[in-house]
Amino acid sequence: MARLAGVSEATVSRVLNGVGPIKEETRQRVLEAAAALHYVPSAIAQQFARRRSGNLGIILPLLPKVNLFATHYFSELLSGIGATAKQEGYDLLLFFQGHDEPRHYDRLFQAQKIDACIILGAQDVPAEREALKELHAASRAFCLISQRYEDEPYNTVDADHASGVRAAVKHLLEKGYERIGLLNGPSVYSNSRDRLEGFRQALAEQQLAASDAPVLIGNYSRKSGYSHADQVAMLIRKGELDAIVAGSDRMAIGLLQGLKEHGLTAGIHYGLVGCDDSEGSRLTDPALTSLTVPFYEAGSEAAARLLTSASDEEAESGFQLKLPVQLVVRGSSAVRPL
Amino acid sequence: MARLAGVSEATVSRVLNGVGPIKEETRQRVLEAAAALHYVPSAIAQQFARRRSGNLGIILPLLPKVNLFATHYFSELLSGIGATAKQEGYDLLLFFQGHDEPRHYDRLFQAQKIDACIILGAQDVPAEREALKELHAASRAFCLISQRYEDEPYNTVDADHASGVRAAVKHLLEKGYERIGLLNGPSVYSNSRDRLEGFRQALAEQQLAASDAPVLIGNYSRKSGYSHADQVAMLIRKGELDAIVAGSDRMAIGLLQGLKEHGLTAGIHYGLVGCDDSEGSRLTDPALTSLTVPFYEAGSEAAARLLTSASDEEAESGFQLKLPVQLVVRGSSAVRPL
Repeated sequence: MARLAGVSEATVSRVLNGVGPIKEETRQRVLEAAAALHYVPSAIAQQFARRRSGNLGIILPLLPKVNLFATHYFSELLSGIGATAKQEGYDLLLFFQGHDEPRHYDRLFQAQKIDACIILGAQDVPAEREALKELHAASRAFCLISQRYEDEPYNTVDADHASGVRAAVKHLLEKGYERIGLLNGPSVYSNSRDRLEGFRQALAEQQLAASDAPVLIGNYSRKSGYSHADQVAMLIRKGELDAIVAGSDRMAIGLLQGLKEHGLTAGIHYGLVGCDDSEGSRLTDPALTSLTVPFYEAGSEAAARLLTSASDEEAESGFQLKLPVQLVVRGSSAVRPL
Repeated sequence: MARLAGVSEATVSRVLNGVGPIKEETRQRVLEAAAALHYVPSAIAQQFARRRSGNLGIILPLLPKVNLFATHYFSELLSGIGATAKQEGYDLLLFFQGHDEPRHYDRLFQAQKIDACIILGAQDVPAEREALKELHAASRAFCLISQRYEDEPYNTVDADHASGVRAAVKHLLEKGYERIGLLNGPSVYSNSRDRLEGFRQALAEQQLAASDAPVLIGNYSRKSGYSHADQVAMLIRKGELDAIVAGSDRMAIGLLQGLKEHGLTAGIHYGLVGCDDSEGSRLTDPALTSLTVPFYEAGSEAAARLLTSASDEEAESGFQLKLPVQLVVRGSSAVRPL
């Protein structure tokens, strides 16, 4: 290799080990010779020479009873991230982060396991804020999806959940529903807060009092939707509710199933709109009106911007994206209530 | 650290850099001192010292138009693998392998990106056989899921697809169906070959001629099931077919949807059994009779055995597991045909 590159063995070693000052031209010559000789660099030499792992890290929440990959939300995000990472020559390194475990995000960079990182399922809690601050202070290439911290300048890819819920409420009112409630997720997620804001705005636009409108809190799971069925059935029978917007299709589907057991059918006895436009929304009976969120694009966009900035240190522009959300009308809200 | 371990700086360096002969006791002392001092080793020192990356590699097929993570098969496998890897202190490194790309599996080990590897979606094609032979020759810790090479001694976790299909055919015959066909996947997958074998055995057991039974080939996707609907509708109308076993729920669901457009309803005009017992099988109308395959357990078992053998070089026992498959009866096969 030294001969091919026209340098000494010591120089080859210095380049591959990243030791000492080396002219960029010489460094390139050695690396090209290595490539021409199909020299498979060990991770060590490679890391020393290039200071990169070739891995894009993804932090995923550890949810012991949930098959994360099967959910529309995570599967679409991961597909989008994976496709773009593959194009850019990166592999994906997945970390499952328990809610109560210490968040050692920066150690992944320190240990050179990853060159950039996308954080999914981040919550607005002190430990999370701490870990993200640490990443930011160390100028790591990282990005949040579907979570914003209003007072922090972090890279973010999000969707316009507020406008989505506003469109859903408007649609229900146009269909003749009058008393609309929200089944939201917990407020540690900024997207839950966005939905609540959109809900309140929509009611205010129609001069409806938001204070009368029922707001229930689940955790985005099907089960948490199902477990609200008794309460919702009671509200419907008392005439205090005739339509509901749920913060996820999974909650909407759970609620739909629970209300069916009460003899209440979506699209007949009450109106129902989910969020996510998942596969499941097309399979329920009636099919579920939902909000399409471009999760695949969100993942793809996050990976593209992050990997560009990770490989090009010049490009230091942060990004805060908000992707559009669209209403897809199906049977669960299509029929005017009796 | 040298002081705490009671050794020289040079010895610390030798241990962390894995250079030169070191007594195991001394090595342990240095590593314990490092741990006590919360010394965060760089990946380089760590790798030199322990010769491991802490990553479990997963090869996934690159299917540009399919959201892999959303499929029941991959999502359950990945969940099982992920949960066990997390328990064992490993992170997951995902590689998307294009069908026509060179399969450089061994380079992942050479470059110390992974310590062990699970290969999903492997096919019985020469390039795949070549890449696996290379791994085996280098004594890498790797494992195949749902794919066997009869003449090779590779670690494998598989399910008893043949018995499953046998049970499905037997069930359909008991329900009164008489002319049963198979919608199988391609034969580059050993599980497709297993299903065909089970199908033939079941017919032979009933003294039915396998040569008359229609066998159609899809590619496990919903679309490929849907695209066979015209042909299947014709066979049903001609009285040459009254029930079908599909090699995946996705194909079964596509076929069910396509046949509905022909005015043919599963469980009334024909019997239908899928494979995988996915979420979708519970959401169709009628719900789909299917074969439960313990994919989560398959993934978990593969990871557990592999990571044990990767961390303990003594344990060099190979494994070939075959997990049981069970029939779950639902509406698509429950009604006796008219």
